[in-house]
Amino acid sequence: MNLNQRTYLLVTGASRGIGRHVAQQLACQITAAASIVVLLGRNESQLQETKMSIMSARPELVVHTYSLELATANEADFARILDDSLAGKDLAELQLERAIVIHNAGTLGDTSKHARELGDIELLKQYYQINLFSTLALNREFMRVFAELPKLVVNLSTLAAIQPIKSMAYYCSVKASREMYFRVLAAEEPANKTLVLNYAPGVIDTQMTLQVQNESHDESVANLFKTTRESQKMLKPEQTAQKLIAVLQAQNFQSGDHVDFNDQ
Amino acid sequence: MNLNQRTYLLVTGASRGIGRHVAQQLACQITAAASIVVLLGRNESQLQETKMSIMSARPELVVHTYSLELATANEADFARILDDSLAGKDLAELQLERAIVIHNAGTLGDTSKHARELGDIELLKQYYQINLFSTLALNREFMRVFAELPKLVVNLSTLAAIQPIKSMAYYCSVKASREMYFRVLAAEEPANKTLVLNYAPGVIDTQMTLQVQNESHDESVANLFKTTRESQKMLKPEQTAQKLIAVLQAQNFQSGDHVDFNDQ
Repeated sequence: MNLNQRTYLLVTGASRGIGRHVAQQLACQITAAASIVVLLGRNESQLQETKMSIMSARPELVVHTYSLELATANEADFARILDDSLAGKDLAELQLERAIVIHNAGTLGDTSKHARELGDIELLKQYYQINLFSTLALNREFMRVFAELPKLVVNLSTLAAIQPIKSMAYYCSVKASREMYFRVLAAEEPANKTLVLNYAPGVIDTQMTLQVQNESHDESVANLFKTTRESQKMLKPEQTAQKLIAVLQAQNFQSGDHVDFNDQ
Repeated sequence: MNLNQRTYLLVTGASRGIGRHVAQQLACQITAAASIVVLLGRNESQLQETKMSIMSARPELVVHTYSLELATANEADFARILDDSLAGKDLAELQLERAIVIHNAGTLGDTSKHARELGDIELLKQYYQINLFSTLALNREFMRVFAELPKLVVNLSTLAAIQPIKSMAYYCSVKASREMYFRVLAAEEPANKTLVLNYAPGVIDTQMTLQVQNESHDESVANLFKTTRESQKMLKPEQTAQKLIAVLQAQNFQSGDHVDFNDQ
């Protein structure tokens, strides 16, 4: 991953947690001035914090923030955001050489429900809109706008995408579909033009793991998260962000592969 | 699988193809009179054909048909169908001893599209409604109504649920999520009360494989289906139905496993 090139970097869920740390660490390694960093997230003031930490370290970057709700965002919103972030200029004029998207945003779903209790169609539509459909809509726009540039597409995946976990029927199933979508994308696109990575970040000390611990209907799962947290064996978001960047730098994976924090 | 017990059997997509053959073959092995067979599908006249072929072989069964569009069906529709099929009686009164559901219905999605082109949110909602959300809504109702009985839950899966195939981003991703949902269900439910199987039927001579061959944007995939069909190496729906029933009879799988036609 040559970060000396003039880069367009887009990170979703960049207001906090893993997304914020990936955005910060990756942006700080981009050396080409006038590279563009785009931060998407729900909370504008937290996005501003992410932006400020990047700007203070790398004032020569152009950083945009866009707050939006993925539950209601549509195709036009993503088109508008990408368009706005390029300030109406074309890629040649901006001298962009590489584009990176980190699809990080996601929600856990209701872990108080057993799999047998899932089936509220409106709730499912909304959950899949946030975690899958909006990701695909954004990715389509990204692939279209940067068709001519070498692209790196990272899907923040999870162990739960490849292994069933009690009380996580929502999360496991949507993450499985999302990972499979990116595997098909990788199969279809030449890796030298579009390199795809499904990265599983490990068990991280975030709001999401706290939610599992507090709300899971399965005592063994709730306890596992609780004891992992209490014994301070949970990873910090900055640790997994660091590992992700190391994986991207080493690039010893095939396009579409699932790589876990604990691999190697 | 003891089909001498008085059984409730529900099959979706029973108007044709695999669903019809599974319904026919399984129903014909149910020996207990007054067992109930419920056939769901889009086409009422084709459902009647399936029903007639079952009734002529097994006149002592009670066979119901319900035509509905999964694109618009909701939770209430499934509740109404199950309720109607039990004629307002409770399980004890009907002396039911076992319940089986075969989640077979499904659609291919648009294989003329590359993965990078997916992202029309309304289309995605509709596709997931037909192939995932309606399955979960029906399964929830099935699990609720038959909570007290030993249950067998079969998900018609596919190789494409575990392996990316070019031009099949819709199908691969929704089938991956559906399979993962049933794996979580299996993890949560005791196998002696709810046994779950993800069955991949192989490459079958059906409308769906014809559609791949005619519409896939990927020439190698279209050609593979074409030459497999022309060399008569495609399986017939009745063959895979037979194999599925053999797998269920032998029951040498763990609840939640993915079993392929070609396994063993």
